[in-house]
Amino acid sequence: MDPRIDRLQRISARRKGLLPLGGGLPAAELFPRRLLAGAFRSAVSSEALQYGWPEGNERLRAFIAERLVTRGARVAASDVIVTSGAQQAIAIAADLVGLNGARVGVDPVTYPGALDLFRARGATTVTGGDVACWYVVPGASNPRGTGLSSARRDALLASGAPLVVDEAYAELRFDGRLEPPLVATAPDRVLHVGTFSKTLCPGLRVGWLVPPRALLEEALRLKREADLQAGSLAQAVLEAYLDTGDFDAHLSRARATYAARAARLVRAIRRELPALRLVTPEGGFAVFVETDLHGIDEARALAIATEVGVSFDPASAFRASGSTEPLGMRLSCSSLSGVAIDEAVRRLARVLRELAG
Amino acid sequence: MDPRIDRLQRISARRKGLLPLGGGLPAAELFPRRLLAGAFRSAVSSEALQYGWPEGNERLRAFIAERLVTRGARVAASDVIVTSGAQQAIAIAADLVGLNGARVGVDPVTYPGALDLFRARGATTVTGGDVACWYVVPGASNPRGTGLSSARRDALLASGAPLVVDEAYAELRFDGRLEPPLVATAPDRVLHVGTFSKTLCPGLRVGWLVPPRALLEEALRLKREADLQAGSLAQAVLEAYLDTGDFDAHLSRARATYAARAARLVRAIRRELPALRLVTPEGGFAVFVETDLHGIDEARALAIATEVGVSFDPASAFRASGSTEPLGMRLSCSSLSGVAIDEAVRRLARVLRELAG
Repeated sequence: MDPRIDRLQRISARRKGLLPLGGGLPAAELFPRRLLAGAFRSAVSSEALQYGWPEGNERLRAFIAERLVTRGARVAASDVIVTSGAQQAIAIAADLVGLNGARVGVDPVTYPGALDLFRARGATTVTGGDVACWYVVPGASNPRGTGLSSARRDALLASGAPLVVDEAYAELRFDGRLEPPLVATAPDRVLHVGTFSKTLCPGLRVGWLVPPRALLEEALRLKREADLQAGSLAQAVLEAYLDTGDFDAHLSRARATYAARAARLVRAIRRELPALRLVTPEGGFAVFVETDLHGIDEARALAIATEVGVSFDPASAFRASGSTEPLGMRLSCSSLSGVAIDEAVRRLARVLRELAG
Repeated sequence: MDPRIDRLQRISARRKGLLPLGGGLPAAELFPRRLLAGAFRSAVSSEALQYGWPEGNERLRAFIAERLVTRGARVAASDVIVTSGAQQAIAIAADLVGLNGARVGVDPVTYPGALDLFRARGATTVTGGDVACWYVVPGASNPRGTGLSSARRDALLASGAPLVVDEAYAELRFDGRLEPPLVATAPDRVLHVGTFSKTLCPGLRVGWLVPPRALLEEALRLKREADLQAGSLAQAVLEAYLDTGDFDAHLSRARATYAARAARLVRAIRRELPALRLVTPEGGFAVFVETDLHGIDEARALAIATEVGVSFDPASAFRASGSTEPLGMRLSCSSLSGVAIDEAVRRLARVLRELAG
């Protein structure tokens, strides 16, 4: 990452009155604090403070497996490894596939944490051709928020390559529709990744990996080497929270909230910045937009935005090519509501006028 | 790891009435549950559920740096990376040093999590000669519980090689003596590792890495790629707990508890098993013992122990050589107290009689 952009992101995160369209944070007001505090009270007296096993807590693994079974996959609790967030699940998946010198297939724009990781492992990120594996974000992609078409799904399955399938946002499709997971169709070559970070809250750092059974032993070894185990406390809090039965109602509330925010963001962009190219999101936290501006230094654009009191995530971090051309941005509405979204987009329009002028 | 041993360890962990000399778990009755529950209540209303920065929470980093400064090191909060336990800190340190095909210098017996990691990274673990780096556990080593002699300390510093310094047990020396950390003398080549897992509780998964400043940027990149950040909730709970000012009193209680248990374990071994070779521990959770038995299958020994109602950690996992000869074991007294220690050693004596017989 450009260190200037990292610095600006830290400045904008602290700036009072700044309206963040960058960052992609879930809505903090959705976090079920009261239920989680109750969950902690019951968890702290259990084994939540002690060491656990590298694969994670039994009941949590069973919960994760069961939700996949409901969607048509044949996954047992013993197939699930609880990870320190989805990022670690992707990292383990990358090491299981082995990427050094390889080509990894990705969407033209996708999750920067995965792109950075693949490149650090010595891989080139490409959007087609022969690849060592594909990385896909079905249900609602990041940053576009769009689903996987059935044609694309069929092509991925037909490719024969291992598929790292990141369902981070899949349960946050606005229509609540959950396709059968790819692991249901190709359990022998799907490395299935999920997380509670987007649906519940990121601060617990609990995600999961379901590797093909033939790779389970090696995946567990990698997990143990990485950090022994996911946090016992976080897992125990999660188990106690899931016991309250609130999770599905919480997902409904989250979907409704994010759907309303995305619709408002799209309306504001169409009103204030009609020249921006965008695809209407079907889920997730954000809208990805592209301008017609070329030759713009992303760090300069972000510096102007910070002054104007708005932020965004520059497009290059999301692009398989790493290109800064044309100027594009991920605009997240997840942590803003109502009129703040309208005002943030008005400020963004000022930034783009300044850059164009 | 021998899968039979892994399976036996899982069986013995569940077996009612079994007295665990294996596992090396901290004493659960020492965990300050009431204070941690209070810490959670204040943490849950803060940013504890949201994403944080890869380097960790400011106040926690400042706390860690300050304790090193008190001991004579010139470490700033900005030098500290909060990690998902010490294991992740060691993993990042290993990747910073670069181990593929290298020789890593270690004690003849040391922490298996580090040995496994170094070997998985393509290194050979050796106890002398030219090495790419040294891995040392000062203050109280694992599994011997002994400190670093000043001659050894001088030799390590004179070697010129990078030093991965794991202080997991340093604050659990029974005499409470804290040497100046190696990072105080050689900040440009010490990769300093610490954790709250042994001193406070493992379930939070909070450790830290202080890399040399020249490697800080790369270390942060590795941390981000590994799992984005350590748990926000765990860090917030820790910060609120540390605010109570209980930590040093807690350390005193822990040292007194573990010192009494270690003394009792050593007495019991000398009484019941006088032929065992051991070095009296100066800190930590365990005593490392070696027998005169050769040609013993460790898994068989552990299976007999499980039947007799005791467990231990087989020596081969701790040995730089990986050797199973002679039969040796780490015996942890950390999670047993009083007469349970005496009874566990009596059972162990039965196991060894059966193996010798």
